[in-house]
Amino acid sequence: MTPEQKLKELSIELPGVAKPLGSYVPFVKAGNVIYLSGMLPLKDGKLITAGRLGESVTIDDAVLCSRTAAINALGILKSAAGSLGMVKQCVKITGFIASAPDFTDQPKVLNGASDLMVAVFGEAGRHARAAVGVNILPLNSPVEVEFIFEVRE
Amino acid sequence: MTPEQKLKELSIELPGVAKPLGSYVPFVKAGNVIYLSGMLPLKDGKLITAGRLGESVTIDDAVLCSRTAAINALGILKSAAGSLGMVKQCVKITGFIASAPDFTDQPKVLNGASDLMVAVFGEAGRHARAAVGVNILPLNSPVEVEFIFEVRE
Amino acid sequence: MTPEQKLKELSIELPGVAKPLGSYVPFVKAGNVIYLSGMLPLKDGKLITAGRLGESVTIDDAVLCSRTAAINALGILKSAAGSLGMVKQCVKITGFIASAPDFTDQPKVLNGASDLMVAVFGEAGRHARAAVGVNILPLNSPVEVEFIFEVRE
Repeated sequence: MTPEQKLKELSIELPGVAKPLGSYVPFVKAGNVIYLSGMLPLKDGKLITAGRLGESVTIDDAVLCSRTAAINALGILKSAAGSLGMVKQCVKITGFIASAPDFTDQPKVLNGASDLMVAVFGEAGRHARAAVGVNILPLNSPVEVEFIFEVRE
Repeated sequence: MTPEQKLKELSIELPGVAKPLGSYVPFVKAGNVIYLSGMLPLKDGKLITAGRLGESVTIDDAVLCSRTAAINALGILKSAAGSLGMVKQCVKITGFIASAPDFTDQPKVLNGASDLMVAVFGEAGRHARAAVGVNILPLNSPVEVEFIFEVRE
Repeated sequence: MTPEQKLKELSIELPGVAKPLGSYVPFVKAGNVIYLSGMLPLKDGKLITAGRLGESVTIDDAVLCSRTAAINALGILKSAAGSLGMVKQCVKITGFIASAPDFTDQPKVLNGASDLMVAVFGEAGRHARAAVGVNILPLNSPVEVEFIFEVRE
């Protein structure tokens, strides 16, 4: 199955790419490496959840947030690479998790993004990653996720 | 106009590169990609502003901080690449913004760095980026900014 | 001396690589660049110290933490590259330091990782880096460190 077929099987529809709001862009390709801008769990232009882990946001809600950020990333990646079949490897994911000062389960939250990569790309979806806690994120988002992908020549 | 001419038009003088203070260096080039160390809003060796957004530091002050960090980055980049005309693309900017727990406008703060890239490099200055809040930064700086550039062979 | 000989001289034994716990992996190689997952100061599967700088954790303790994270990184790097002699350059280190809101010495903490790179690799160990404070990290770790290395073809 192609990544696009796997997305269909998972009933995931990729969003369009929002127009850049400033001097930055959704992605940049340098050589065979695509760097994406930090992804938020936006759906139809709105955060699906707001707040911090260890306060108002549960781990289950936040897993869905990191998965949604990853879906948004795939939408941009498809526009960047033409087809998700061009992806050679998901290289690196860095997840920033808005956390109360005693919340230490950032890795569980980021699994929403990590597991989607493997569901869609198989072995090529396995990536290096870091999960980090922070006190606050843009728009009061619970998560922000950075992605680096390698594509075929 | 060359990037250097644009800097002159903007009345921006690039600072020299401070000598490395430890085991790290201002930049490393790997292939055609230049990674810079985290840039602070230092001028003549001192922070131009200290403190957190949402507390003592205003968005306008912090925009100037991210712009100053970007000017310092260009000083290092010029020494790394010989000429700013060698820059093919500003690839990625990650901005860490020292934030009170209820400050959510990190992207506005980072525009000081982003807008300078486009002012100096034009389309080649458009980059992927992430803006993240943190509780505290080195020296009590309001911002710290990472830059990745691609240069011509 | 080879990097492996330097490690022996420093009485450092590299740990084995823990099996991946989820959809992510300890490293990914893209072209000649190796990205490592965020490294924690784990020894025999346990944090050597827990807590925040500026609270229960001293700078000396945390320097040892960032050094331990770096030792873990070298263990993974050796398994990735076959031999540490394949390393062309330590490219970039990003250190996240769990910090009380008034702790501003993150760079001192990260020197434990930076100095080890130079001790092991010499000039090839000098890297770009960023040190950032955050309010909390996975497992209540005092530090988490990201590494990017370039290897020979």
